[in-house]
Amino acid sequence: MSKVFVLGHKNPDTDSICSAIVYAHLKRELGMDAEAIRLGELNNETLYALEQFKASTPRLVERAASEVEQVILVDHNERQQSINDIDEVQVIEVIDHHRIANFETADPVYFRAEPVGCTTTILLKLYKEHAVTVPAEMAGLMLSAIISDSLLFKSPTCTEQDVQAAKELAEIAGVDAQEYGLAMLKAGADLSNKTLEDLVSLDSKEFEAGGHRFEVAQVNAIDVSEVMNRQKDLEVLIGDIVATKGLDLFVFTVTDILNNNSEAIVLGRRTDIIEGAFGSEVTDNRVLMPGVVSRKKQIVPVITEALS
Amino acid sequence: MSKVFVLGHKNPDTDSICSAIVYAHLKRELGMDAEAIRLGELNNETLYALEQFKASTPRLVERAASEVEQVILVDHNERQQSINDIDEVQVIEVIDHHRIANFETADPVYFRAEPVGCTTTILLKLYKEHAVTVPAEMAGLMLSAIISDSLLFKSPTCTEQDVQAAKELAEIAGVDAQEYGLAMLKAGADLSNKTLEDLVSLDSKEFEAGGHRFEVAQVNAIDVSEVMNRQKDLEVLIGDIVATKGLDLFVFTVTDILNNNSEAIVLGRRTDIIEGAFGSEVTDNRVLMPGVVSRKKQIVPVITEALS
Ligand SMILES: [Mn+2]
Ligand SMILES: [Mn+2]
Repeated sequence: MSKVFVLGHKNPDTDSICSAIVYAHLKRELGMDAEAIRLGELNNETLYALEQFKASTPRLVERAASEVEQVILVDHNERQQSINDIDEVQVIEVIDHHRIANFETADPVYFRAEPVGCTTTILLKLYKEHAVTVPAEMAGLMLSAIISDSLLFKSPTCTEQDVQAAKELAEIAGVDAQEYGLAMLKAGADLSNKTLEDLVSLDSKEFEAGGHRFEVAQVNAIDVSEVMNRQKDLEVLIGDIVATKGLDLFVFTVTDILNNNSEAIVLGRRTDIIEGAFGSEVTDNRVLMPGVVSRKKQIVPVITEALS
Repeated sequence: MSKVFVLGHKNPDTDSICSAIVYAHLKRELGMDAEAIRLGELNNETLYALEQFKASTPRLVERAASEVEQVILVDHNERQQSINDIDEVQVIEVIDHHRIANFETADPVYFRAEPVGCTTTILLKLYKEHAVTVPAEMAGLMLSAIISDSLLFKSPTCTEQDVQAAKELAEIAGVDAQEYGLAMLKAGADLSNKTLEDLVSLDSKEFEAGGHRFEVAQVNAIDVSEVMNRQKDLEVLIGDIVATKGLDLFVFTVTDILNNNSEAIVLGRRTDIIEGAFGSEVTDNRVLMPGVVSRKKQIVPVITEALS
């Protein structure tokens, strides 16, 4: 059997990288010539996890079709989030925990999506279903992904299945989930090597609602004030983006990963909806969002409804 | 929790009906208020299976939204094959073994598709994963679906997993798979209450290739000559369909379920490709197809290639 690539989404997060490495391992154990690849640069958090568990960095690959005929997608299924030449290869499997969209095949495939907080929670089930032993390094990577996607079990996307999987994986990996998790999140929240341009662009997504276009950027931090002290410079950058893209609203969110709150800088002509949407006053373009950590579940739906 | 409908595809076959009944059972065991429904009339084969295992016929439902907010799809995922008001309800799960197309959700769902021969082969795994005991009646229905979809393990769509599942299920159901399977297929091949119009329309699907449109009907029979003796009348009906729909080719296939061969009546202006495609002579609009039983794997791809 010829080689198969296992790959996560573009702008890879810890789940996308770790799931690719781990699932490639499982598939090799099952006799497939599988190689994990990545579609972009690793963030600080992922680098920390790979180093902790002595995993090598997957190869950066921009086009698959010159090397393989078949690929396996993890942590995504939408074509536009996948490798650029996805239409030139055959997708033989998908393991994911996101909504399903823009996905179509000519033949039956193995497609396993579950509404859990992290892809590796599903991968742990697959190891068990195939009765393959989970090595400590793989357990460590799976645990790292769950901690990352769930913000140490605090995100509303986190399910009981994720918590149970993490407990099991921490034991196999021989680490304390809380202690290791906090260290990993802190490594990811190390903003010292980031420019202000990085902060507003690295993890930013655009959305549409009621004919309005809005963008929500998110940065994890240990010390929120460290970022907010540079509000005036950030506002210049964000104002440029709003003008260039013709956005109606930009929400630059800084999430306090220790206390599980967020604070945001809001700009654009529809900042009027922010107070009503989040029940907090906007002062000097800033708003506190107590208990808010998930863009997907706590920010985007609220703004979407307010604008619709 | 409010009620959830479990449903198979339109023009239901044995897998769609049995999977709905069986998965609704499993979900009820897991605490969900699940009801199996059907989107159309039962065929003779399915009636036989339900009677053998004392299962009641699911209720015929044409619109879901007036009764439930959520549905589970089995044995299909494409919207056009599903209940008419599918866009007005939320799909919370899909269990299927077909290609994935025309499917999209707003939120993460449980989507389990595997490239096996039958949906109930996957359902048996789900019983095991949830550690729920399979009752004899449910085992009988699952076995019936596998026998139906695999034509008693003879179809090229049948996998080793389907064969193993059937073996296990026959034991639980307390029947001999070969003996029961043949009886069930014979019940389905009883054409005595079918009109000629039924034969050319009940299981007929239209396709497109290379700018040509073709249709392939399939009828299972014990005695192929019983059908072929009425060739002249069938040709009049088929000729009408070809003219009305403007088809380039119509392949009316009669499959001998005892000997696993097919014979077809072919009409239309592109019958010229049939000899080359199947390597058999066309005489008096008829062609023998030795070893051919699967429309999906052995007829449609061959014609598609010949026309492209
Ligand atoms: Mn993920
Ligand atoms: Mn089926």
